Amino acid sequence: MPNHRAAALDFLNAQEHVALERLTQLCSIPSVSTDPDHAADMLKAADWIADQFKYIGLDHIQVFPTQRHPIVFGQYCADSIDAPTVLIYGHYDVQPAAPLELWHSDPFTPEIREDRLYARGASDMKGQVVAAIQAVEAVLKTNPLPVNIKFIIEGEEEIGSPSMPQFLREQKQILSSDVCLNPDAGMVSPTTPTISYGLRGLAYFELYVYGPDHDLHSGMFGGVVHNPAHALAELIAGMHDDQQRITLPGFYDSVRTLTPDEHHEFSRLPVSRESYLRQTGAPELWGESDFLPQERVGVRPTLDVNGMISGFTGAGSKTIIPSQAMAKISMRLVPDQQPAEVAQQLRQYLEERAPKTIRWELKDMQGAPASIADRNHPAAQALAKAMEQVWNVPPIYKREGGSIPVVGAMQDILGVESVLTGFGLPDDNIHSPNEKLHLPTWYSGMKALVHFFYNLVEA
Amino acid sequence: MPNHRAAALDFLNAQEHVALERLTQLCSIPSVSTDPDHAADMLKAADWIADQFKYIGLDHIQVFPTQRHPIVFGQYCADSIDAPTVLIYGHYDVQPAAPLELWHSDPFTPEIREDRLYARGASDMKGQVVAAIQAVEAVLKTNPLPVNIKFIIEGEEEIGSPSMPQFLREQKQILSSDVCLNPDAGMVSPTTPTISYGLRGLAYFELYVYGPDHDLHSGMFGGVVHNPAHALAELIAGMHDDQQRITLPGFYDSVRTLTPDEHHEFSRLPVSRESYLRQTGAPELWGESDFLPQERVGVRPTLDVNGMISGFTGAGSKTIIPSQAMAKISMRLVPDQQPAEVAQQLRQYLEERAPKTIRWELKDMQGAPASIADRNHPAAQALAKAMEQVWNVPPIYKREGGSIPVVGAMQDILGVESVLTGFGLPDDNIHSPNEKLHLPTWYSGMKALVHFFYNLVEA
Repeated sequence: MPNHRAAALDFLNAQEHVALERLTQLCSIPSVSTDPDHAADMLKAADWIADQFKYIGLDHIQVFPTQRHPIVFGQYCADSIDAPTVLIYGHYDVQPAAPLELWHSDPFTPEIREDRLYARGASDMKGQVVAAIQAVEAVLKTNPLPVNIKFIIEGEEEIGSPSMPQFLREQKQILSSDVCLNPDAGMVSPTTPTISYGLRGLAYFELYVYGPDHDLHSGMFGGVVHNPAHALAELIAGMHDDQQRITLPGFYDSVRTLTPDEHHEFSRLPVSRESYLRQTGAPELWGESDFLPQERVGVRPTLDVNGMISGFTGAGSKTIIPSQAMAKISMRLVPDQQPAEVAQQLRQYLEERAPKTIRWELKDMQGAPASIADRNHPAAQALAKAMEQVWNVPPIYKREGGSIPVVGAMQDILGVESVLTGFGLPDDNIHSPNEKLHLPTWYSGMKALVHFFYNLVEA
Repeated sequence: MPNHRAAALDFLNAQEHVALERLTQLCSIPSVSTDPDHAADMLKAADWIADQFKYIGLDHIQVFPTQRHPIVFGQYCADSIDAPTVLIYGHYDVQPAAPLELWHSDPFTPEIREDRLYARGASDMKGQVVAAIQAVEAVLKTNPLPVNIKFIIEGEEEIGSPSMPQFLREQKQILSSDVCLNPDAGMVSPTTPTISYGLRGLAYFELYVYGPDHDLHSGMFGGVVHNPAHALAELIAGMHDDQQRITLPGFYDSVRTLTPDEHHEFSRLPVSRESYLRQTGAPELWGESDFLPQERVGVRPTLDVNGMISGFTGAGSKTIIPSQAMAKISMRLVPDQQPAEVAQQLRQYLEERAPKTIRWELKDMQGAPASIADRNHPAAQALAKAMEQVWNVPPIYKREGGSIPVVGAMQDILGVESVLTGFGLPDDNIHSPNEKLHLPTWYSGMKALVHFFYNLVEA
């Protein structure tokens, strides 16, 4: 059906303005899942997606309520009995936009500058969701394709997909599929199509350190009580040794050793000290010196303070010993680390290191293990071919530093493998101010998805 | 003139309700000197004091403008040529009230619970200023006293009295005095009148640590860039060794050694591990183990983080590597440390310890050296006698952990010694939520001041 494929691609090209309009509409909804104040925006975004599903011709459209934010479902059933079924995963929630003062345009008023669209969620992952909608629409509105398509678009990915496991269990029947297409990963460069086959897990905590029962005058009590900000600093500083290794007891015990083959593959990735310095603006790189930078984000676990606060942080000077200090601490996990395991290691570290001069409390926020997908899955091969058809080079395979808990959940609960890809770029500033999406790459990505669907059914 | 003294004391007693009304009015003005938003309140407080000066019968009343907040002056000139002159110092500015949520009543709506008045500034030091006004009024409105009295009440003490040196130089003539009464210190207990003869100095800084030029996705970049929150934590943790000694190079070089006599005197202070634990609510004491707690706040220099912030501190989880981290760091100095000297030591520490993986910036906020007053000054003896006349025990002499830069400035510029006292208590929560003033002790303090004036001229 080459003419069918061509027709779908023509339709896609003719619809670029619609794609942009849809992306603008979706990015205008501040669907910040972690912030209770945005609960109404979450519903608005979910309904908007359900409307698009209806418009492009899906049926059995449902907005499933959860404990927090709804999951949107829609499907297309092919006529033929033996049509393969592709489950397309996405999320409509985004990270908070703070700090607002660093944005050059309003995070929820999408603005195009040069060939990029700037908005929170443009790249992670509203752009990817719209790309999938465009590709499916192009296929459905031109010629019927012997592929069943199911969408689930959730609203809790940025908070660890807490509702997803129960949803997958409850809706196992309607979600049964041959493969999951998950475009929540990204490309390493605009000219390098990328398929991700590994994801790091995540464990997120809040650590509270309590000292005196109220803020104290630092002149009257400086020197007699342990300052909680110092105690927290000491605990954080001790979490890495001078080799930048994490010191939690047993932290690396279950971490797989890197094989020579993997090392060889990592060394071929088109990244370098210079490219990392350019993307981050950091004065120098940091981390375990016996691993390549791309290995440190790919196959090594990491620990980061995501936020830290204590005492008086306003303008001017206040001479106090703060009564408490807090840090948000998260770890990126690799096979075969378990969130519960590292949580216990962190507790043990605190029990061993925390002095009697302070009290501490550790709050477990979220956790998901790492996952590795099958690179040789037929769908992965169909996608690889599709990417080469668009970019004229075969995709590279990488392990993602980020975490997508749903991938593991789908393996465990649905028994469905995920094919991880996406059309965002490393400098898209996702989770950061001035998040952006490179539109030419985005349009190419839609084409690749159309090819992907046809490659699934054409030898 | 014993009947004169008695008349003044009777007048004072009859005016207690006026004293309370004045304190309530002054504490209702949110005169937070460090916050530009309160500039108008600062003027309001200064004018209110000038009005009281007029009412109690002072003349030459002036509100001197400064770079930031005005200084209020007023005086009483005795008839006799050889009358001694007492300069009464005070400040009408207060520390910020934050964190507001920890206050049980509005910090600027004074509320009496049991025998205490709760309000920001009630103890530090609006209550002390009103006490001095009450005592002077009682003396002036009963019988003329052969003592010249001059008041200067400034509005920048809580930000380090930056305008005071220039003011003292410019107004040297009108400020010429025999002694300065400074009631900005406090008592160690309600039954222990206290004269402070030493004050610690202060050096205040903001330390900024910069890493990547924007917040980064901790999954994409965790493990390759140095997290500024970690780097700041490492720098703060390194500022104390495991003996709780400060590690800045040369920090203790100019610190005077404690003499056996001083140690003996400190050991007689009515304070203990238990009293410090009770006042602070800390789980355990902390600090240099080879010094008594009261020595650590009295004669030893200390370093405290007063505030610290980095990254995402809102509700929920955000998985970023923050682009920067900041800490407010202040040191309490003792003789013979100089603020410029410790600032240099901190810079050297940072130059030696800060890694190349981050950038840092140190902002010098304020500084004042420590000072020691003459305990044998005739005015100090007059005050000691006055206190014994009220509390029936002689005062104890202590060195204050806090800092009152103006004391040193008066010694250097005016050549005037200060007698340091005050009627606040260690558990007044000054600089903390729920600051309060113990009213019975406050009324006793006013009486002591009346005795003080009479003791100055009566053998």
